[in-house]
Amino acid sequence: MASEAIGIGLIGMGVVGGGVARILQDRADYFHQVKGLDLQIRRVAVRDLSKPRAVDLPQDLFTDNPEAVVHDPSVQIVVEVMGGLDPAGSLCQLALEAGKDVVTANKALLAEQGNPLFEAAAKNNVGLGFEASVCGGIPIIQVLSNSLVGNHIESLYGILNGTTNYILTRMTEEGGDFDTMLGQAQEKGFAEADPTMDIDGTDAAQKLALLCRLAFRVHLSPGQILKEGISHITSLDIDFAGELGYTIKLLGIARSAGDRIEARVHPALVPQDSLLANIKDEFNAVEVVGSATGPQVFYGRGAGELPTASAVVADLITQAERRKAGHAGPGLVLDNLPEAITVPPEEIQTGAYFRLTVYDRPGVLAQIATLFANKDVSIETVIQHGRSETQDGTVPLILTTHEAPESSIRAAIEALNQLPIVTEPAQVIRIVNP
Amino acid sequence: MASEAIGIGLIGMGVVGGGVARILQDRADYFHQVKGLDLQIRRVAVRDLSKPRAVDLPQDLFTDNPEAVVHDPSVQIVVEVMGGLDPAGSLCQLALEAGKDVVTANKALLAEQGNPLFEAAAKNNVGLGFEASVCGGIPIIQVLSNSLVGNHIESLYGILNGTTNYILTRMTEEGGDFDTMLGQAQEKGFAEADPTMDIDGTDAAQKLALLCRLAFRVHLSPGQILKEGISHITSLDIDFAGELGYTIKLLGIARSAGDRIEARVHPALVPQDSLLANIKDEFNAVEVVGSATGPQVFYGRGAGELPTASAVVADLITQAERRKAGHAGPGLVLDNLPEAITVPPEEIQTGAYFRLTVYDRPGVLAQIATLFANKDVSIETVIQHGRSETQDGTVPLILTTHEAPESSIRAAIEALNQLPIVTEPAQVIRIVNP
Repeated sequence: MASEAIGIGLIGMGVVGGGVARILQDRADYFHQVKGLDLQIRRVAVRDLSKPRAVDLPQDLFTDNPEAVVHDPSVQIVVEVMGGLDPAGSLCQLALEAGKDVVTANKALLAEQGNPLFEAAAKNNVGLGFEASVCGGIPIIQVLSNSLVGNHIESLYGILNGTTNYILTRMTEEGGDFDTMLGQAQEKGFAEADPTMDIDGTDAAQKLALLCRLAFRVHLSPGQILKEGISHITSLDIDFAGELGYTIKLLGIARSAGDRIEARVHPALVPQDSLLANIKDEFNAVEVVGSATGPQVFYGRGAGELPTASAVVADLITQAERRKAGHAGPGLVLDNLPEAITVPPEEIQTGAYFRLTVYDRPGVLAQIATLFANKDVSIETVIQHGRSETQDGTVPLILTTHEAPESSIRAAIEALNQLPIVTEPAQVIRIVNP
Repeated sequence: MASEAIGIGLIGMGVVGGGVARILQDRADYFHQVKGLDLQIRRVAVRDLSKPRAVDLPQDLFTDNPEAVVHDPSVQIVVEVMGGLDPAGSLCQLALEAGKDVVTANKALLAEQGNPLFEAAAKNNVGLGFEASVCGGIPIIQVLSNSLVGNHIESLYGILNGTTNYILTRMTEEGGDFDTMLGQAQEKGFAEADPTMDIDGTDAAQKLALLCRLAFRVHLSPGQILKEGISHITSLDIDFAGELGYTIKLLGIARSAGDRIEARVHPALVPQDSLLANIKDEFNAVEVVGSATGPQVFYGRGAGELPTASAVVADLITQAERRKAGHAGPGLVLDNLPEAITVPPEEIQTGAYFRLTVYDRPGVLAQIATLFANKDVSIETVIQHGRSETQDGTVPLILTTHEAPESSIRAAIEALNQLPIVTEPAQVIRIVNP
């Protein structure tokens, strides 16, 4: 199949960029034969020209000026894998305005400052591919943009962050505490030196915002998403959750609620026999409930050199095909979306797990049960283990509740924390049945 | 967004066809706004014109002559959902030759007689969409054709048949035998009145053949696939497998082995903590191991009106987009593929579960262990429960083996069945660690 070569420019040649270059070299014959496409890397911007590269590319392709990639007339598709908001954002903007397609793995950029980029892509009739920005190699962007096009998306539930899933899995399987398992994740390369954005749910919220753009066709700022991290989860909670038939996971949840969107990221007790409870270690998964398909789950590695590079390459091929067709197809319309109206957190209906530290005296459960009843929160199960062996005579008291408005749950927490028999602030984790 | 309408012709208006018509009506505004596409149903062939229809379509669109759909000049894309090999095959052929795109849910047709259709599509530069033919609403065709394009596919493992998965799940969870659970599946609509093609693995083999076409770019006839059904699985086997930490599933397995393909459909013991073991009831799942992505799993409903219709509609949109772009993109090249060279079954390496019925005498295990050693098959675990309570003094003896060539396993089976202490033919089920 004859074809004109399409020029690729890479901005960034770190872990992901190197993987992209390697796949483009290894699969060149395949792309030529099967897709009729020849993709040629024609310019590569790096920070440090003297650093040795694992990929075999002519030295004269390299530059330390990323604008040289954007302005290179032989480059038709720009791959931005340098990361960060600035200058990545302005480089992508320049590339789109210059009529080049852009492929990026930059979830923070698109989630926090994506609107002008989606607008520039639409205005210039070029493509903006971002499969690699959410859940690495899992083709969730493709699925939501194309495969599920016949569905109204009712809800989605995602294990969107590998670092926190690794930590929670190890806490569950080895019984260690949060800090120990965070250290282990860092040693194994599943957590950054500064893991704040992973641990506090920011990374998951950015991914969820992008998924909402596709699933619900709204612009949702990550700041609009109820967000809670995992650093307060203890091994006690993991054990009690297990006893109750649940596993603790950090979930990103988005649901269509009339003309509003419910969107939240928080740790949750999920039933042990659900697929999401069985997503282990650094793996990611997204459950999507479509009006026609019902529940579907997509599972795989959410990060890493080659899984992420695989997603970049899929986007490259899609953009190259569109370019070859003269950008005649309608593409993916993601600009000018309405601002999302979110359901206020206090209106969200949720079940909850409570771990209370209480004095071990007769009448304690009666007092607490009365409090819950007064707040209109219905108790589902109670676990009270043995007699106190602590010096201060306290015992853990575990309760789970049926679904109630979050405002009622919060009122119960506040009241509990004022009871003299409750000696420590209540630990509360939501229960989710995906 | 202005757009010229694209004419759709439906051949068949049964369960799936009705779902397609309903989705096209319900989502018309969405397709117009988001994709710039207007899809109009312009002709519908049905068997019985007098049958009342759940979908609201003008009566004059209906015909009982399917060729009228194929030859209608106002129809650009033909949806074949009548099923069966004939006349579905010749109708699809006529449509492709007339320059129309075809979307079909007909896995038997494509797996058994697909070559001329894929050739006609390529020759006439039109599309042949078949997402709905494998695993209903799960977008596995899209994933293999596009999302994983940067990967060499190493292997895939699928729960490809909902009927058998329902039966095996119910046997596992309720403890019933095969016949009872088949009856239950039929009552609930998860099994056909004649379930032969599901039970004996034919349906799964047809789907596996189509997946191999995409994953390995070979033409593999379903007849080349090692095939074994589930009707010989007993509740005893389910129980012993559970005791050993396994769940029994009907798997379709395909692996790249140099320039050959290993392809087989058979019941298998899979580890209880694997995702595939936790795919329940009528659901399907496919695990794909890509060279860049590593393992990925795709899960959802593999059949049913709306899940299947969802896949048909996804293909319709893809074909409409390609048509709008003048079929300029390279599309999906699936014609003229080489014939697959399959690994002969006896060369396949597999672990196995053996359930033997033996006389309860001293020295039996020694005799059997010696036999396995003589056949070069290494035993991994043995379960011998209590003393015999059967009238004939026999007990079940359960063994699992490490991986060995299937020829050695078969030699062991033959030798075992000749031992006087073994009173019934050995029950043997392969062990698979996806």
